[in-house]
Amino acid sequence: MSRDAAAPPPHRFEILVRVYYEDTDAGGIVYHASWLRFMERARTDWLRSLGAHQVELAERDRLLFVVAALSIRYLRPARLDDLLRIDLEVLETRRASLRLAQRAWATEPDGRAPPGTPLIDAEVRVAAVRRDAGRPAPLPGWLLNLLGHE
Amino acid sequence: MSRDAAAPPPHRFEILVRVYYEDTDAGGIVYHASWLRFMERARTDWLRSLGAHQVELAERDRLLFVVAALSIRYLRPARLDDLLRIDLEVLETRRASLRLAQRAWATEPDGRAPPGTPLIDAEVRVAAVRRDAGRPAPLPGWLLNLLGHE
Amino acid sequence: MSRDAAAPPPHRFEILVRVYYEDTDAGGIVYHASWLRFMERARTDWLRSLGAHQVELAERDRLLFVVAALSIRYLRPARLDDLLRIDLEVLETRRASLRLAQRAWATEPDGRAPPGTPLIDAEVRVAAVRRDAGRPAPLPGWLLNLLGHE
Amino acid sequence: MSRDAAAPPPHRFEILVRVYYEDTDAGGIVYHASWLRFMERARTDWLRSLGAHQVELAERDRLLFVVAALSIRYLRPARLDDLLRIDLEVLETRRASLRLAQRAWATEPDGRAPPGTPLIDAEVRVAAVRRDAGRPAPLPGWLLNLLGHE
Repeated sequence: MSRDAAAPPPHRFEILVRVYYEDTDAGGIVYHASWLRFMERARTDWLRSLGAHQVELAERDRLLFVVAALSIRYLRPARLDDLLRIDLEVLETRRASLRLAQRAWATEPDGRAPPGTPLIDAEVRVAAVRRDAGRPAPLPGWLLNLLGHE
Repeated sequence: MSRDAAAPPPHRFEILVRVYYEDTDAGGIVYHASWLRFMERARTDWLRSLGAHQVELAERDRLLFVVAALSIRYLRPARLDDLLRIDLEVLETRRASLRLAQRAWATEPDGRAPPGTPLIDAEVRVAAVRRDAGRPAPLPGWLLNLLGHE
Repeated sequence: MSRDAAAPPPHRFEILVRVYYEDTDAGGIVYHASWLRFMERARTDWLRSLGAHQVELAERDRLLFVVAALSIRYLRPARLDDLLRIDLEVLETRRASLRLAQRAWATEPDGRAPPGTPLIDAEVRVAAVRRDAGRPAPLPGWLLNLLGHE
Repeated sequence: MSRDAAAPPPHRFEILVRVYYEDTDAGGIVYHASWLRFMERARTDWLRSLGAHQVELAERDRLLFVVAALSIRYLRPARLDDLLRIDLEVLETRRASLRLAQRAWATEPDGRAPPGTPLIDAEVRVAAVRRDAGRPAPLPGWLLNLLGHE
Protein backbone atom coordinates (compact mmCIF):
# COMPACT_ATOMS: atom_id res chain seq x y z
CA MET A 1 0.00 0.00 0.00
CA SER A 2 1.54 3.31 -1.06
CA ARG A 3 0.40 6.74 -0.06
CA ASP A 4 0.45 9.96 -1.99
CA ALA A 5 3.49 12.06 -1.14
CA ALA A 6 1.13 14.95 -0.44
CA ALA A 7 -0.95 12.91 1.98
CA PRO A 8 -1.27 14.44 5.42
CA PRO A 9 0.99 12.98 8.09
CA PRO A 10 -0.59 9.80 9.41
CA HIS A 11 0.00 10.61 13.08
CA ARG A 12 -2.75 13.17 13.48
CA PHE A 13 -6.43 13.25 12.63
CA GLU A 14 -9.61 15.03 13.59
CA ILE A 15 -13.33 14.81 13.01
CA LEU A 16 -16.37 16.94 13.78
CA VAL A 17 -19.12 15.50 15.97
CA ARG A 18 -22.58 16.96 16.49
CA VAL A 19 -24.22 16.43 19.91
CA TYR A 20 -27.71 14.90 19.67
CA TYR A 21 -30.21 13.98 22.37
CA GLU A 22 -28.84 10.41 22.34
CA ASP A 23 -25.51 11.75 23.65
CA THR A 24 -26.87 13.74 26.58
CA ASP A 25 -28.28 12.86 29.98
CA ALA A 26 -30.71 14.33 32.47
CA GLY A 27 -27.93 16.54 33.83
CA GLY A 28 -28.33 18.48 30.58
CA ILE A 29 -24.81 17.70 29.34
CA VAL A 30 -23.03 15.06 27.26
CA TYR A 31 -23.12 11.77 29.20
CA HIS A 32 -19.64 10.84 30.37
CA ALA A 33 -19.55 7.54 28.46
CA SER A 34 -20.64 9.24 25.22
CA TRP A 35 -17.19 10.83 24.94
CA LEU A 36 -15.71 7.35 24.51
CA ARG A 37 -18.02 6.79 21.54
CA PHE A 38 -16.92 10.12 20.03
CA MET A 39 -13.26 9.21 20.49
CA GLU A 40 -13.78 5.84 18.85
CA ARG A 41 -15.42 7.47 15.83
CA ALA A 42 -12.28 9.56 15.39
CA ARG A 43 -10.04 6.48 15.63
CA THR A 44 -12.21 4.52 13.19
CA ASP A 45 -12.28 7.32 10.63
CA TRP A 46 -8.53 7.77 11.04
CA LEU A 47 -7.89 4.06 10.38
CA ARG A 48 -10.22 4.22 7.38
CA SER A 49 -8.33 7.27 6.07
CA LEU A 50 -5.16 5.15 6.25
CA GLY A 51 -6.80 2.30 4.37
CA ALA A 52 -7.77 0.07 7.29
CA HIS A 53 -11.37 -1.02 7.11
CA GLN A 54 -12.33 -2.68 10.36
CA VAL A 55 -14.80 -5.00 8.70
CA GLU A 56 -12.10 -6.33 6.35
CA LEU A 57 -9.63 -6.59 9.19
CA ALA A 58 -12.17 -8.54 11.23
CA GLU A 59 -13.35 -10.83 8.47
CA ARG A 60 -10.26 -11.35 6.32
CA ASP A 61 -7.48 -10.97 8.87
CA ARG A 62 -9.50 -12.08 11.94
CA LEU A 63 -8.08 -9.01 13.63
CA LEU A 64 -9.85 -6.64 16.00
CA PHE A 65 -8.66 -3.40 17.48
CA VAL A 66 -9.68 -3.20 21.12
CA VAL A 67 -9.23 -0.54 23.77
CA ALA A 68 -6.77 -1.95 26.28
CA ALA A 69 -6.62 1.04 28.61
CA LEU A 70 -7.94 4.56 28.74
CA SER A 71 -7.65 7.58 30.99
CA ILE A 72 -9.77 10.68 30.56
CA ARG A 73 -10.21 14.01 32.29
CA TYR A 74 -13.54 15.78 31.91
CA LEU A 75 -12.64 19.47 31.92
CA ARG A 76 -15.72 21.26 30.55
CA PRO A 77 -19.17 19.96 29.66
CA ALA A 78 -20.68 19.94 26.19
CA ARG A 79 -24.37 20.42 25.46
CA LEU A 80 -27.09 19.47 23.01
CA ASP A 81 -26.50 20.83 19.48
CA ASP A 82 -22.84 21.63 20.15
CA LEU A 83 -20.49 20.92 17.26
CA LEU A 84 -17.32 19.38 18.66
CA ARG A 85 -13.91 18.74 17.22
CA ILE A 86 -12.37 15.43 18.30
CA ASP A 87 -8.72 14.91 17.51
CA LEU A 88 -6.09 12.22 17.95
CA GLU A 89 -2.34 12.05 17.89
CA VAL A 90 -0.25 8.90 17.86
CA LEU A 91 2.11 9.10 20.83
CA GLU A 92 3.76 5.71 20.49
CA THR A 93 3.66 2.81 18.02
CA ARG A 94 4.47 -0.63 19.34
CA ARG A 95 4.30 -3.97 17.56
CA ALA A 96 0.89 -4.92 18.94
CA SER A 97 -0.53 -1.67 20.29
CA LEU A 98 -0.75 2.08 19.80
CA ARG A 99 -0.80 4.82 22.40
CA LEU A 100 -2.89 7.84 21.38
CA ALA A 101 -3.70 11.24 22.83
CA GLN A 102 -7.26 12.37 22.15
CA ARG A 103 -8.88 15.69 22.95
CA ALA A 104 -12.23 17.34 22.32
CA TRP A 105 -12.71 21.02 21.56
CA ALA A 106 -15.63 23.39 21.22
CA THR A 107 -15.87 24.78 17.70
CA GLU A 108 -17.48 28.03 18.79
CA PRO A 109 -16.43 30.27 21.64
CA ASP A 110 -19.14 30.16 24.26
CA GLY A 111 -17.76 32.07 27.20
CA ARG A 112 -17.84 28.90 29.25
CA ALA A 113 -14.06 28.65 29.33
CA PRO A 114 -10.95 30.37 28.01
CA PRO A 115 -10.05 29.48 24.42
CA GLY A 116 -7.45 26.78 24.06
CA THR A 117 -8.90 24.65 26.82
CA PRO A 118 -10.03 21.22 25.67
CA LEU A 119 -13.35 19.84 26.88
CA ILE A 120 -11.84 16.46 27.54
CA ASP A 121 -8.27 15.23 27.49
CA ALA A 122 -7.63 11.51 27.15
CA GLU A 123 -4.97 8.93 26.54
CA VAL A 124 -5.98 5.64 24.93
CA ARG A 125 -4.05 2.42 24.38
CA VAL A 126 -5.43 0.41 21.47
CA ALA A 127 -4.29 -3.18 20.98
CA ALA A 128 -4.78 -5.69 18.19
CA VAL A 129 -6.21 -9.07 19.14
CA ARG A 130 -7.04 -12.24 17.26
CA ARG A 131 -10.77 -12.21 16.73
CA ASP A 132 -11.39 -15.75 17.85
CA ALA A 133 -8.89 -16.34 20.61
CA GLY A 134 -8.82 -12.82 21.98
CA ARG A 135 -5.01 -13.12 22.13
CA PRO A 136 -2.75 -10.14 21.36
CA ALA A 137 -1.68 -9.98 17.74
CA PRO A 138 0.77 -7.82 15.83
CA LEU A 139 -0.62 -4.79 14.05
CA PRO A 140 -0.78 -5.11 10.25
CA GLY A 141 2.64 -4.52 8.73
CA TRP A 142 1.52 -1.76 6.38
CA LEU A 143 0.08 0.16 9.35
CA LEU A 144 3.32 -0.21 11.32
CA ASN A 145 5.19 1.02 8.23
CA LEU A 146 2.95 4.02 7.79
CA LEU A 147 3.47 4.97 11.41
CA GLY A 148 7.22 4.62 11.10
CA HIS A 149 7.60 1.61 13.37
CA GLU A 150 10.92 -0.14 12.75
CA MET B 1 -36.88 -30.15 27.99
CA SER B 2 -39.63 -30.56 30.58
CA ARG B 3 -41.00 -27.89 32.90
CA ASP B 4 -42.26 -28.17 36.43
CA ALA B 5 -46.06 -28.47 36.54
CA ALA B 6 -46.09 -25.57 38.98
CA ALA B 7 -44.10 -23.34 36.65
CA PRO B 8 -45.77 -20.05 35.82
CA PRO B 9 -47.52 -19.90 32.47
CA PRO B 10 -44.92 -19.22 29.79
CA HIS B 11 -46.94 -16.55 27.99
CA ARG B 12 -46.38 -13.73 30.45
CA PHE B 13 -43.35 -12.27 32.14
CA GLU B 14 -42.19 -9.08 33.80
CA ILE B 15 -39.03 -7.49 35.12
CA LEU B 16 -38.12 -4.41 37.12
CA VAL B 17 -35.86 -1.81 35.57
CA ARG B 18 -34.18 1.10 37.34
CA VAL B 19 -33.63 4.32 35.39
CA TYR B 20 -30.02 5.53 35.45
CA TYR B 21 -28.37 8.59 33.89
CA GLU B 22 -27.41 6.45 30.87
CA ASP B 23 -31.12 6.03 30.06
CA THR B 24 -32.08 9.70 30.16
CA ASP B 25 -31.53 12.65 27.86
CA ALA B 26 -31.23 16.41 28.17
CA GLY B 27 -35.03 16.69 28.14
CA GLY B 28 -34.85 15.24 31.66
CA ILE B 29 -36.73 12.07 30.76
CA VAL B 30 -36.00 8.54 29.55
CA TYR B 31 -34.65 8.77 25.99
CA HIS B 32 -37.16 7.31 23.55
CA ALA B 33 -34.80 4.63 22.25
CA SER B 34 -33.94 3.50 25.80
CA TRP B 35 -37.39 1.95 26.09
CA LEU B 36 -36.43 -0.52 23.36
CA ARG B 37 -33.46 -1.59 25.45
CA PHE B 38 -35.73 -2.08 28.47
CA MET B 39 -38.17 -4.15 26.43
CA GLU B 40 -35.38 -6.34 25.10
CA ARG B 41 -34.12 -7.01 28.63
CA ALA B 42 -37.59 -8.33 29.48
CA ARG B 43 -37.65 -10.57 26.40
CA THR B 44 -34.14 -11.88 27.11
CA ASP B 45 -34.90 -12.66 30.76
CA TRP B 46 -38.15 -14.30 29.69
CA LEU B 47 -36.37 -16.54 27.17
CA ARG B 48 -33.76 -17.38 29.81
CA SER B 49 -36.55 -18.26 32.28
CA LEU B 50 -37.83 -20.72 29.66
CA GLY B 51 -34.40 -22.25 29.20
CA ALA B 52 -33.27 -20.40 26.10
CA HIS B 53 -29.82 -18.92 26.47
CA GLN B 54 -29.14 -16.62 23.57
CA VAL B 55 -25.42 -17.32 23.60
CA GLU B 56 -26.06 -21.06 23.23
CA LEU B 57 -28.66 -20.45 20.58
CA ALA B 58 -26.22 -18.28 18.68
CA GLU B 59 -23.17 -20.49 19.02
CA ARG B 60 -24.61 -24.01 19.03
CA ASP B 61 -27.74 -23.57 16.91
CA ARG B 62 -26.47 -20.58 14.84
CA LEU B 63 -29.83 -18.99 15.62
CA LEU B 64 -30.50 -15.35 16.47
CA PHE B 65 -33.70 -13.71 17.60
CA VAL B 66 -34.12 -10.38 15.86
CA VAL B 67 -36.75 -7.68 16.05
CA ALA B 68 -38.63 -7.75 12.76
CA ALA B 69 -41.14 -4.99 13.50
CA LEU B 70 -42.12 -2.81 16.39
CA SER B 71 -44.73 -0.20 17.17
CA ILE B 72 -44.72 1.85 20.34
CA ARG B 73 -46.78 4.63 21.86
CA TYR B 74 -45.11 6.89 24.41
CA LEU B 75 -47.87 7.78 26.84
CA ARG B 76 -46.11 9.18 29.90
CA PRO B 77 -42.45 9.99 30.54
CA ALA B 78 -40.23 8.26 33.10
CA ARG B 79 -37.44 10.00 34.97
CA LEU B 80 -34.07 9.37 36.59
CA ASP B 81 -34.23 6.96 39.57
CA ASP B 82 -37.70 5.69 38.65
CA LEU B 83 -38.24 1.98 39.18
CA LEU B 84 -40.24 0.63 36.24
CA ARG B 85 -42.08 -2.60 35.61
CA ILE B 86 -41.70 -3.91 32.07
CA ASP B 87 -43.99 -6.74 31.07
CA LEU B 88 -44.63 -8.92 28.06
CA GLU B 89 -47.39 -11.15 26.83
CA VAL B 90 -47.22 -13.53 23.88
CA LEU B 91 -50.04 -12.61 21.51
CA GLU B 92 -49.29 -15.06 18.74
CA THR B 93 -46.85 -17.91 18.14
CA ARG B 94 -45.92 -18.70 14.56
CA ARG B 95 -43.38 -21.17 13.25
CA ALA B 96 -40.63 -18.59 12.72
CA SER B 97 -41.77 -15.59 14.73
CA LEU B 98 -43.57 -14.38 17.84
CA ARG B 99 -45.85 -11.42 18.30
CA LEU B 100 -45.64 -9.86 21.76
CA ALA B 101 -47.37 -7.05 23.63
CA GLN B 102 -45.08 -5.11 25.93
CA ARG B 103 -45.93 -2.36 28.39
CA ALA B 104 -44.09 -0.31 30.99
CA TRP B 105 -45.59 0.79 34.30
CA ALA B 106 -44.57 3.09 37.13
CA THR B 107 -44.12 1.14 40.37
CA GLU B 108 -45.03 4.09 42.56
CA PRO B 109 -47.95 6.44 42.14
CA ASP B 110 -46.59 9.85 41.29
CA GLY B 111 -49.57 11.95 40.51
CA ARG B 112 -48.35 12.32 36.94
CA ALA B 113 -51.14 10.16 35.57
CA PRO B 114 -54.12 8.10 36.67
CA PRO B 115 -53.23 4.63 37.96
CA GLY B 116 -53.64 1.86 35.44
CA THR B 117 -52.14 3.88 32.62
CA PRO B 118 -48.98 2.39 31.15
CA LEU B 119 -46.02 4.62 30.39
CA ILE B 120 -45.48 2.97 27.05
CA ASP B 121 -47.51 0.46 25.11
CA ALA B 122 -45.82 -1.56 22.39
CA GLU B 123 -46.21 -4.50 20.05
CA VAL B 124 -43.11 -6.34 18.92
CA ARG B 125 -42.60 -9.05 16.31
CA VAL B 126 -39.53 -11.16 17.01
CA ALA B 127 -38.23 -13.51 14.32
CA ALA B 128 -35.61 -16.24 14.32
CA VAL B 129 -32.88 -16.01 11.68
CA ARG B 130 -29.87 -18.13 10.73
CA ARG B 131 -26.87 -16.39 12.23
CA ASP B 132 -24.74 -16.57 9.10
CA ALA B 133 -27.16 -16.18 6.25
CA GLY B 134 -29.61 -13.88 7.98
CA ARG B 135 -32.43 -16.01 6.52
CA PRO B 136 -35.60 -16.72 8.49
CA ALA B 137 -35.42 -19.94 10.50
CA PRO B 138 -37.96 -21.90 12.52
CA LEU B 139 -38.06 -21.26 16.25
CA PRO B 140 -36.61 -24.10 18.37
CA GLY B 141 -39.13 -26.95 18.67
CA TRP B 142 -39.12 -26.99 22.49
CA LEU B 143 -39.99 -23.29 22.54
CA LEU B 144 -42.85 -23.78 20.10
CA ASN B 145 -44.06 -26.67 22.31
CA LEU B 146 -43.90 -24.58 25.45
CA LEU B 147 -45.91 -21.85 23.80
CA GLY B 148 -48.53 -24.34 22.59
CA HIS B 149 -47.78 -23.99 18.90
CA GLU B 150 -49.19 -26.97 17.02
CA MET C 1 -38.34 34.17 9.37
CA SER C 2 -38.17 34.14 5.59
CA ARG C 3 -36.60 31.49 3.42
CA ASP C 4 -34.76 31.83 0.18
CA ALA C 5 -37.03 31.16 -2.80
CA ALA C 6 -34.43 28.65 -4.03
CA ALA C 7 -34.43 26.78 -0.74
CA PRO C 8 -35.25 23.10 -1.04
CA PRO C 9 -38.79 22.13 -0.15
CA PRO C 10 -39.07 21.81 3.62
CA HIS C 11 -40.96 18.53 3.59
CA ARG C 12 -38.05 16.25 2.76
CA PHE C 13 -34.58 15.79 4.13
CA GLU C 14 -31.81 13.24 4.31
CA ILE C 15 -28.50 12.66 6.03
CA LEU C 16 -25.65 10.18 5.80
CA VAL C 17 -24.80 8.07 8.83
CA ARG C 18 -21.71 5.92 9.28
CA VAL C 19 -22.05 2.73 11.33
CA TYR C 20 -19.50 2.47 14.15
CA TYR C 21 -18.92 -0.24 16.77
CA GLU C 22 -21.17 1.71 19.18
CA ASP C 23 -24.12 1.07 16.86
CA THR C 24 -23.69 -2.69 16.52
CA ASP C 25 -24.35 -5.65 18.77
CA ALA C 26 -23.00 -9.15 19.25
CA GLY C 27 -25.25 -10.37 16.43
CA GLY C 28 -22.84 -8.52 14.14
CA ILE C 29 -25.46 -6.04 12.88
CA VAL C 30 -26.82 -2.62 13.81
CA TYR C 31 -28.65 -2.94 17.16
CA HIS C 32 -32.38 -2.45 16.66
CA ALA C 33 -32.60 0.57 18.96
CA SER C 34 -29.69 2.30 17.19
CA TRP C 35 -31.94 2.94 14.20
CA LEU C 36 -34.05 5.22 16.39
CA ARG C 37 -30.95 7.25 17.17
CA PHE C 38 -30.16 7.52 13.45
CA MET C 39 -33.70 8.64 12.68
CA GLU C 40 -33.56 11.29 15.38
CA ARG C 41 -30.31 12.67 13.97
CA ALA C 42 -32.10 13.15 10.65
CA ARG C 43 -35.03 14.92 12.35
CA THR C 44 -32.71 17.15 14.37
CA ASP C 45 -30.61 18.15 11.36
CA TRP C 46 -33.80 18.78 9.39
CA LEU C 47 -35.18 21.08 12.10
CA ARG C 48 -31.82 22.85 12.27
CA SER C 49 -31.87 23.30 8.47
CA LEU C 50 -35.25 25.02 8.89
CA GLY C 51 -33.92 27.29 11.60
CA ALA C 52 -35.11 25.43 14.68
CA HIS C 53 -32.36 24.92 17.22
CA GLN C 54 -33.55 22.54 19.87
CA VAL C 55 -31.45 24.16 22.56
CA GLU C 56 -33.07 27.53 21.88
CA LEU C 57 -36.50 25.98 21.70
CA ALA C 58 -35.90 24.27 25.02
CA GLU C 59 -34.36 27.23 26.84
CA ARG C 60 -36.12 30.22 25.32
CA ASP C 61 -39.48 28.76 24.38
CA ARG C 62 -39.54 25.97 27.00
CA LEU C 63 -40.55 23.71 24.18
CA LEU C 64 -39.41 20.14 23.55
CA PHE C 65 -40.08 17.90 20.61
CA VAL C 66 -40.82 14.39 21.81
CA VAL C 67 -41.58 11.17 20.01
CA ALA C 68 -45.22 10.36 20.71
CA ALA C 69 -45.48 7.17 18.67
CA LEU C 70 -43.34 5.19 16.30
CA SER C 71 -43.65 2.10 14.17
CA ILE C 72 -40.76 0.51 12.37
CA ARG C 73 -40.14 -2.50 10.16
CA TYR C 74 -36.64 -3.93 10.06
CA LEU C 75 -36.24 -5.21 6.50
CA ARG C 76 -32.51 -5.74 6.03
CA PRO C 77 -29.62 -5.52 8.48
CA ALA C 78 -26.77 -3.01 8.30
CA ARG C 79 -23.22 -3.74 9.40
CA LEU C 80 -20.12 -2.09 10.82
CA ASP C 81 -18.58 0.55 8.51
CA ASP C 82 -21.70 0.77 6.33
CA LEU C 83 -22.56 4.26 5.15
CA LEU C 84 -26.33 4.71 5.37
CA ARG C 85 -28.72 7.26 4.00
CA ILE C 86 -31.51 8.20 6.40
CA ASP C 87 -34.37 10.23 4.99
CA LEU C 88 -37.59 11.79 6.20
CA GLU C 89 -40.75 13.09 4.63
CA VAL C 90 -43.47 15.07 6.37
CA LEU C 91 -46.72 13.18 5.89
CA GLU C 92 -48.99 15.41 7.96
CA THR C 93 -48.69 18.68 9.84
CA ARG C 94 -51.02 19.25 12.75
CA ARG C 95 -51.11 22.09 15.23
CA ALA C 96 -49.20 20.24 17.94
CA SER C 97 -47.62 17.33 16.14
CA LEU C 98 -46.05 16.09 12.92
CA ARG C 99 -46.33 12.73 11.26
CA LEU C 100 -43.19 11.69 9.36
CA ALA C 101 -42.11 8.79 7.19
CA GLN C 102 -38.49 7.77 7.67
CA ARG C 103 -36.46 5.19 5.78
CA ALA C 104 -32.87 4.00 5.72
CA TRP C 105 -30.98 2.96 2.61
CA ALA C 106 -27.66 1.36 1.81
CA THR C 107 -25.42 3.72 -0.15
CA GLU C 108 -23.58 0.93 -1.91
CA PRO C 109 -25.09 -2.13 -3.57
CA ASP C 110 -24.03 -5.16 -1.58
CA GLY C 111 -25.91 -8.04 -3.09
CA ARG C 112 -27.80 -8.49 0.15
CA ALA C 113 -31.05 -7.27 -1.33
CA PRO C 114 -32.49 -5.89 -4.54
CA PRO C 115 -31.87 -2.19 -5.10
CA GLY C 116 -34.73 0.05 -4.08
CA THR C 117 -35.44 -1.85 -0.90
CA PRO C 118 -35.01 0.21 2.24
CA LEU C 119 -33.23 -1.28 5.25
CA ILE C 120 -35.85 0.05 7.61
CA ASP C 121 -39.18 1.71 7.03
CA ALA C 122 -40.72 3.77 9.82
CA GLU C 123 -43.46 6.20 10.68
CA VAL C 124 -42.91 8.62 13.54
CA ARG C 125 -45.27 11.03 15.27
CA VAL C 126 -43.42 13.92 16.90
CA ALA C 127 -45.24 16.18 19.32
CA ALA C 128 -44.35 19.46 20.98
CA VAL C 129 -44.62 19.61 24.77
CA ARG C 130 -44.06 22.27 27.40
CA ARG C 131 -40.69 21.56 28.93
CA ASP C 132 -41.79 21.88 32.53
CA ALA C 133 -45.30 20.53 32.57
CA GLY C 134 -44.90 17.93 29.87
CA ARG C 135 -48.25 19.09 28.43
CA PRO C 136 -48.86 19.23 24.68
CA ALA C 137 -48.06 22.59 23.14
CA PRO C 138 -48.56 24.09 19.70
CA LEU C 139 -45.64 23.90 17.31
CA PRO C 140 -43.90 27.23 16.68
CA GLY C 141 -45.90 29.36 14.24
CA TRP C 142 -43.02 29.86 11.78
CA LEU C 143 -42.58 26.10 11.54
CA LEU C 144 -46.28 25.58 10.89
CA ASN C 145 -46.07 28.27 8.21
CA LEU C 146 -43.09 26.70 6.55
CA LEU C 147 -44.84 23.37 6.42
CA GLY C 148 -47.96 24.95 4.94
CA HIS C 149 -50.23 24.39 7.94
CA GLU C 150 -53.27 26.66 7.74
CA MET D 1 -29.64 11.32 58.90
CA SER D 2 -28.68 8.42 61.17
CA ARG D 3 -27.79 4.93 60.09
CA ASP D 4 -28.43 1.63 61.80
CA ALA D 5 -25.42 0.50 63.82
CA ALA D 6 -25.59 -2.81 61.96
CA ALA D 7 -25.48 -1.13 58.58
CA PRO D 8 -22.67 -2.32 56.33
CA PRO D 9 -19.65 -0.06 56.13
CA PRO D 10 -20.38 2.74 53.71
CA HIS D 11 -17.05 2.55 51.89
CA ARG D 12 -17.75 -0.57 49.84
CA PHE D 13 -20.59 -1.69 47.62
CA GLU D 14 -21.32 -4.07 44.80
CA ILE D 15 -24.05 -4.89 42.33
CA LEU D 16 -24.78 -7.60 39.79
CA VAL D 17 -25.15 -6.65 36.14
CA ARG D 18 -26.46 -8.87 33.36
CA VAL D 19 -25.02 -8.36 29.87
CA TYR D 20 -27.68 -7.82 27.20
CA TYR D 21 -27.38 -7.25 23.45
CA GLU D 22 -27.48 -3.48 24.08
CA ASP D 23 -24.15 -3.76 25.92
CA THR D 24 -22.24 -5.67 23.25
CA ASP D 25 -20.75 -4.77 19.89
CA ALA D 26 -19.96 -6.50 16.61
CA GLY D 27 -16.69 -7.76 18.11
CA GLY D 28 -18.90 -10.10 20.14
CA ILE D 29 -17.91 -8.62 23.50
CA VAL D 30 -19.07 -5.88 25.87
CA TYR D 31 -18.49 -2.52 24.15
CA HIS D 32 -15.73 -0.61 25.92
CA ALA D 33 -17.96 2.36 26.83
CA SER D 34 -20.64 0.07 28.30
CA TRP D 35 -18.37 -0.61 31.25
CA LEU D 36 -18.69 3.04 32.24
CA ARG D 37 -22.46 2.63 32.33
CA PHE D 38 -22.10 -0.45 34.55
CA MET D 39 -19.78 1.40 36.91
CA GLU D 40 -22.19 4.31 37.17
CA ARG D 41 -25.05 1.98 38.06
CA ALA D 42 -22.95 0.71 40.98
CA ARG D 43 -22.20 4.27 42.14
CA THR D 44 -25.85 5.30 41.84
CA ASP D 45 -27.12 2.29 43.78
CA TRP D 46 -24.43 2.87 46.40
CA LEU D 47 -25.48 6.52 46.85
CA ARG D 48 -29.11 5.41 47.04
CA SER D 49 -28.19 2.82 49.70
CA LEU D 50 -26.69 5.68 51.73
CA GLY D 51 -29.82 7.77 51.34
CA ALA D 52 -28.77 10.00 48.46
CA HIS D 53 -31.36 10.13 45.71
CA GLN D 54 -29.89 11.86 42.71
CA VAL D 55 -33.23 13.27 41.64
CA GLU D 56 -33.70 14.96 45.01
CA LEU D 57 -30.12 16.17 45.01
CA ALA D 58 -30.61 17.62 41.56
CA GLU D 59 -33.99 19.22 42.14
CA ARG D 60 -33.88 20.24 45.81
CA ASP D 61 -30.18 20.88 46.31
CA ARG D 62 -29.35 21.79 42.67
CA LEU D 63 -26.43 19.40 43.03
CA LEU D 64 -25.13 16.95 40.46
CA PHE D 65 -22.48 14.31 40.80
CA VAL D 66 -20.28 14.29 37.72
CA VAL D 67 -17.34 12.18 36.66
CA ALA D 68 -14.30 14.45 36.75
CA ALA D 69 -11.69 11.88 35.72
CA LEU D 70 -11.49 8.20 35.06
CA SER D 71 -8.85 5.64 34.19
CA ILE D 72 -9.66 2.08 33.25
CA ARG D 73 -7.77 -1.03 32.19
CA TYR D 74 -9.62 -3.62 30.13
CA LEU D 75 -8.15 -6.95 31.24
CA ARG D 76 -10.60 -9.58 30.01
CA PRO D 77 -13.69 -9.32 27.81
CA ALA D 78 -17.23 -10.11 28.92
CA ARG D 79 -19.89 -11.58 26.64
CA LEU D 80 -23.62 -11.64 26.06
CA ASP D 81 -25.60 -13.23 28.93
CA ASP D 82 -22.67 -12.98 31.38
CA LEU D 83 -23.63 -12.04 34.92
CA LEU D 84 -21.04 -9.60 36.24
CA ARG D 85 -20.23 -8.30 39.66
CA ILE D 86 -19.33 -4.60 39.72
CA ASP D 87 -17.85 -3.28 42.95
CA LEU D 88 -16.63 0.01 44.32
CA GLU D 89 -14.44 1.13 47.19
CA VAL D 90 -14.00 4.71 48.39
CA LEU D 91 -10.28 5.46 48.30
CA GLU D 92 -10.42 9.09 49.35
CA THR D 93 -13.05 11.55 50.52
CA ARG D 94 -12.44 15.22 49.86
CA ARG D 95 -14.73 18.17 50.47
CA ALA D 96 -15.97 18.38 46.89
CA SER D 97 -15.02 15.06 45.36
CA LEU D 98 -14.54 11.34 45.95
CA ARG D 99 -11.93 9.01 44.57
CA LEU D 100 -13.19 5.46 44.02
CA ALA D 101 -11.73 2.15 42.87
CA GLN D 102 -14.09 0.09 40.75
CA ARG D 103 -13.63 -3.42 39.40
CA ALA D 104 -15.72 -5.92 37.47
CA TRP D 105 -15.64 -9.67 38.05
CA ALA D 106 -17.06 -12.73 36.33
CA THR D 107 -19.51 -14.54 38.60
CA GLU D 108 -18.82 -17.93 37.04
CA PRO D 109 -15.45 -19.45 36.24
CA ASP D 110 -15.14 -19.74 32.49
CA GLY D 111 -11.63 -20.88 31.86
CA ARG D 112 -10.91 -17.60 30.11
CA ALA D 113 -8.63 -16.41 32.88
CA PRO D 114 -7.34 -17.41 36.30
CA PRO D 115 -9.75 -16.78 39.15
CA GLY D 116 -9.12 -13.62 41.08
CA THR D 117 -8.44 -11.57 37.96
CA PRO D 118 -10.87 -8.70 37.44
CA LEU D 119 -12.30 -8.06 34.00
CA ILE D 120 -11.74 -4.35 34.31
CA ASP D 121 -9.95 -2.29 36.90
CA ALA D 122 -10.75 1.40 37.16
CA GLU D 123 -10.27 4.51 39.25
CA VAL D 124 -12.93 7.21 39.12
CA ARG D 125 -12.99 10.72 40.54
CA VAL D 126 -16.54 11.96 41.14
CA ALA D 127 -17.14 15.64 41.87
CA ALA D 128 -20.16 17.59 43.01
CA VAL D 129 -21.17 20.58 40.89
CA ARG D 130 -23.90 23.21 41.07
CA ARG D 131 -26.54 22.17 38.61
CA ASP D 132 -26.94 25.55 36.99
CA ALA D 133 -23.51 27.07 37.03
CA GLY D 134 -21.52 23.88 36.62
CA ARG D 135 -19.19 25.13 39.38
CA PRO D 136 -17.66 22.77 41.93
CA ALA D 137 -19.73 22.45 45.11
CA PRO D 138 -19.14 20.77 48.46
CA LEU D 139 -20.57 17.29 48.90
CA PRO D 140 -23.62 17.13 51.19
CA GLY D 141 -22.56 17.26 54.85
CA TRP D 142 -24.32 14.04 55.83
CA LEU D 143 -22.46 12.17 53.09
CA LEU D 144 -19.11 13.58 54.21
CA ASN D 145 -20.01 12.52 57.76
CA LEU D 146 -20.93 9.02 56.70
CA LEU D 147 -17.65 8.66 54.88
CA GLY D 148 -15.69 9.91 57.87
CA HIS D 149 -14.51 13.17 56.34
CA GLU D 150 -13.39 15.60 59.04
